[in-house]
Amino acid sequence: MATPRPTISLPKSYNDLKFEHIKTAHYEKDPSIIILTLWRPKNYNAFTNTMMLELEQVYGMFDVDDRVKVIVVTGTGKIFCAGADLDMGFKGGFEPINEHRDGGGRVVLAIHNCRKPTIGALQGSAVGVGITMTLPMNIRIAYSKAKIGFVFARRGLVMEACSSFFLPRLIGHSQAMAAVTTGSTYLAEDKIWNGLFTHTVDTPEGVLPKALEVAEEVANNTSVVSTYLMKELMYRDKGSAEGQHLLDSRILFELFTSADNKEGVQSFMEKRPAKFTGTMDTTSVSAYPWWMPIDTVGRAKVDPTSKPKI
Amino acid sequence: MATPRPTISLPKSYNDLKFEHIKTAHYEKDPSIIILTLWRPKNYNAFTNTMMLELEQVYGMFDVDDRVKVIVVTGTGKIFCAGADLDMGFKGGFEPINEHRDGGGRVVLAIHNCRKPTIGALQGSAVGVGITMTLPMNIRIAYSKAKIGFVFARRGLVMEACSSFFLPRLIGHSQAMAAVTTGSTYLAEDKIWNGLFTHTVDTPEGVLPKALEVAEEVANNTSVVSTYLMKELMYRDKGSAEGQHLLDSRILFELFTSADNKEGVQSFMEKRPAKFTGTMDTTSVSAYPWWMPIDTVGRAKVDPTSKPKI
Amino acid sequence: MATPRPTISLPKSYNDLKFEHIKTAHYEKDPSIIILTLWRPKNYNAFTNTMMLELEQVYGMFDVDDRVKVIVVTGTGKIFCAGADLDMGFKGGFEPINEHRDGGGRVVLAIHNCRKPTIGALQGSAVGVGITMTLPMNIRIAYSKAKIGFVFARRGLVMEACSSFFLPRLIGHSQAMAAVTTGSTYLAEDKIWNGLFTHTVDTPEGVLPKALEVAEEVANNTSVVSTYLMKELMYRDKGSAEGQHLLDSRILFELFTSADNKEGVQSFMEKRPAKFTGTMDTTSVSAYPWWMPIDTVGRAKVDPTSKPKI
Repeated sequence: MATPRPTISLPKSYNDLKFEHIKTAHYEKDPSIIILTLWRPKNYNAFTNTMMLELEQVYGMFDVDDRVKVIVVTGTGKIFCAGADLDMGFKGGFEPINEHRDGGGRVVLAIHNCRKPTIGALQGSAVGVGITMTLPMNIRIAYSKAKIGFVFARRGLVMEACSSFFLPRLIGHSQAMAAVTTGSTYLAEDKIWNGLFTHTVDTPEGVLPKALEVAEEVANNTSVVSTYLMKELMYRDKGSAEGQHLLDSRILFELFTSADNKEGVQSFMEKRPAKFTGTMDTTSVSAYPWWMPIDTVGRAKVDPTSKPKI
Repeated sequence: MATPRPTISLPKSYNDLKFEHIKTAHYEKDPSIIILTLWRPKNYNAFTNTMMLELEQVYGMFDVDDRVKVIVVTGTGKIFCAGADLDMGFKGGFEPINEHRDGGGRVVLAIHNCRKPTIGALQGSAVGVGITMTLPMNIRIAYSKAKIGFVFARRGLVMEACSSFFLPRLIGHSQAMAAVTTGSTYLAEDKIWNGLFTHTVDTPEGVLPKALEVAEEVANNTSVVSTYLMKELMYRDKGSAEGQHLLDSRILFELFTSADNKEGVQSFMEKRPAKFTGTMDTTSVSAYPWWMPIDTVGRAKVDPTSKPKI
Repeated sequence: MATPRPTISLPKSYNDLKFEHIKTAHYEKDPSIIILTLWRPKNYNAFTNTMMLELEQVYGMFDVDDRVKVIVVTGTGKIFCAGADLDMGFKGGFEPINEHRDGGGRVVLAIHNCRKPTIGALQGSAVGVGITMTLPMNIRIAYSKAKIGFVFARRGLVMEACSSFFLPRLIGHSQAMAAVTTGSTYLAEDKIWNGLFTHTVDTPEGVLPKALEVAEEVANNTSVVSTYLMKELMYRDKGSAEGQHLLDSRILFELFTSADNKEGVQSFMEKRPAKFTGTMDTTSVSAYPWWMPIDTVGRAKVDPTSKPKI
C-alpha cells in the first residue's frame, strides 16, 4: 500500500484564507468557481518564494475539495506577472545540486496535477515564470496587447518550470523555438503564439469577465472526472494509436456505469443542464494511474535532534 | 513465421457491395477513388455497431485491394455524423473489462492501418465519434459552418477512438485541451481547430467536389507506397533526429531501386504524369515494420461445444 | 573516457574559405553573424554530394568557433534550393544497406547538433531536400510567394533528412500529413505551413535583410549557451512534466552561478545590452548530455592495405 499523503484541512470558504502574495475568492455568481489573484500590487506581481508556497498549498486544496469545479487565475493591476522577483530569483540555494527544485516548476506541477481545470486570465503582460506558470492550465485568455516573453536567453538561463515540456506541445516546435531563440516579448495577439491563447480580448478589463464566462460554461456543463482524465490521457499517452485504444477502451468501459455518465446522458435526453457530482475518489477507473508516477520531492531528511548517537 | 491473417475476398466492384449503414461506390471519373458514405438517412448517420463492423470490413478490403488508391468518406444528408447512436452507445458490454474494445477505436485503427490514404469530406456537423473517426485520415475538408464537438465532458465520458493520441498531435495541446475542456461545439472555420481542416468550404454541396478534386490530385500523382510509409514514419518515429536518420536512410536506400521511384523520376524528366504501380507487397522495405505491432484483438476463445471434458 | 573527436582547424576568416557549392562570409555589420549561401548559380542551388560535405564541414567549424554567434543560410539567385541534383540524387550507393546514410540527413544533423542558432532566409522556392534541410534551423523566414514542396510521394520516395521527425513537431501532424500526401507545392504564405515561417516577406530581396535583422537581435541579446540548451531541452525531453522538472531544476541550479547569467542579470539591472561570453565548454552543466547519444557514423573500416594475412 502506498504511503498516504498528509491530511489537508479545507477552509470553510476560500474568501477567508489569508495569504501574503495571492488572494482567493469564490465567484459570487457561482461559488464552485474560485478566482485566484496574484497579489503584489506594488511589485507587478513578481514571483516570490512566498507566492510559490502559497500557490502550491492552495492548489493542494483545490485538488481534493469537492466544492471546487474550476479555478480562474488572474493578476492585480496592469501586469499579470513580471517574472521572478530579482530579490529572490536567479539564486541557487545551498542545498546539494540534486535536491534543488525550481520554484516555478513546483507551481506548474501543482496546477498540472490538480484534478480541476484552470483558466488563465492574463489581464496584462507576463514574462519568464509569469508566462511559464500558465502553460499547464487548460485554457488561457489574454489582453491582446499584453506582452508575452520567454526571456531566458537574455538572462543567460534556460526556460524553466517544465516549459520545455509544455511549450512545444502547446504551440508546436517552430513557434516555440523562434520565441525562445530571440528571447523577445511579443504581443499576445502576435501569430507566433499560435493558439496559446484561446481568446484575446481588446481591453484589460474585459479579460476576467471573458474568463469567468468560459469558467461558468465549464462548471455548468462538464464533469471534472472527464476533464481531468482527458488531460492525463493527452499528456501521458501510450505512444501509439493501438496502445491508446487499449487504454481508452478500458476507461470507457468503467465510465459507462458511472454516476456522471448516467447524468450526462439523462440530462442530454431531457434537454436540461447536467448536475455532475462525480469525483475521482467516487468513480471507478481501475487503470488509473496508467503511468509510473515520478516522485519529484526526493528523499526524507532526518531531524538532526532525533539522531541517535552511534 | 507469423500466423497468417484470414483471406479476404475482394468484390468485383465496390458499387455492388450491400451494406446496411454505409454505401460504397467507385468515383465515375476515376474508379481508383472510392466514395464511402455514412448512410443512415433518418438518423443523422449516428454511429452503430453495424456501421462499425461494416467500416472495419471494407477498410480491410481497401488495404489489400490494388485497384484502390484513395478513399473519400462523407455522410448522407445534412449531418456528417451525430455521434454514437444512443440506442447502442454508452453501454458497457458484458465481457470482462480487459476484453472490451471501443467501437470507435476499432474503426479508427482500421483507417489508421489501411495502406491507402483517406480524405474526409465533412458536408455537415460531426460530434463525438463523428469527429474522432476522422482523425486518422490524411486530409479533412469541411463545410465552414459545420459544428464540430468533442462533447465527452458533457456526457461524463472521456475522448474515445484513440482521439487522445491523435487530437493533440494534429492541432497542438493548447487547442485540443481547450476544445475538450469546454466540451462545446465550434464551427469548422473556428480558429480553435488550427488546421484540422485543410480546407473549409462555404456550402455543404461544395465539400464532396473539393474532396474529390484533392483525391484526384493524390491518385494521379503519388505512390501509395510513399504516402503509407510517410504516415508510419511520422506516427511511429524513433524519438530523435538521429534515430530517424538511421531509419529513413535505410528505407530510402531500398526505394532507390523500386519501380515507383524509377517511374517517379522518369515521368518527372519527361514532364508527363506518373503511373505508379507499386504496392507494399511488391516493394522491398526490409526495415518495415520498424515498430513492435500491438495486438489489440486479444486472445482467442475456445468454442464451448468443442471443450473436452476433464 | 570517450574517444576524442579529431581536431578541427578554424579559418582566420570565413570570408577566406574556398568551397565549391557554398559560400561563407562574415556579416559586415556584425562579424559574429555568418552568412552562408548555397552557391550553384546555374543549377538552382540543387543539392549535391559536394554541397553536403561542405555544409557538414563548415557546420563542424561553427559548432566550436567561439567567434560565431548566429548563422544565416540563404541561396543565390531566384531559387533557394531545387532539391537533390538528379545527377547525384535518387541513387543508392554500393555500400551495404546498413551503411548507407542519407546525404540530406547528414546536413540536417550537422545543423541540429551545432551549438549556434541558424536562421533560414529562403529568398525563393525550396523543394525536397531544399526545404527539409531547413527544418532543424531555429527560425525560418521566406519570400511569401516562394513555392515549398515535400514532393517525395511524386517521386516514389519517402520524406528524408529526418523530416518525418521534424515536420510534424514543427507544424503539427494535420498539416504535415496533408502536405506530404498531396506532394504538391504551396506558397510559403499558404496556411498549410502553420508557422513554419516566422515571417514571410513580400519581395525576394527583402528576405535576407529581415533575416539579418533577426540575427542581430539574437546575436546582441542572447547567450548561445541558453539557446543551445533550450533547443536540446525541447527536442530531447524526458516525456513528462515531472521528468522535465527534475532536469531543468538541475540545469538552472548550475546556471545560476554562470558567467552568462551574471552578465544577463547585471545588464538587465543596468539597462544596457548584455555581452555574453559563455560557451558550453566554459559553462558547468553536469547533466549534459542527459540523453544517450546515437552514433550515426557506424563502425570503422579496416584499411585493406594494412590487413595482415591469416
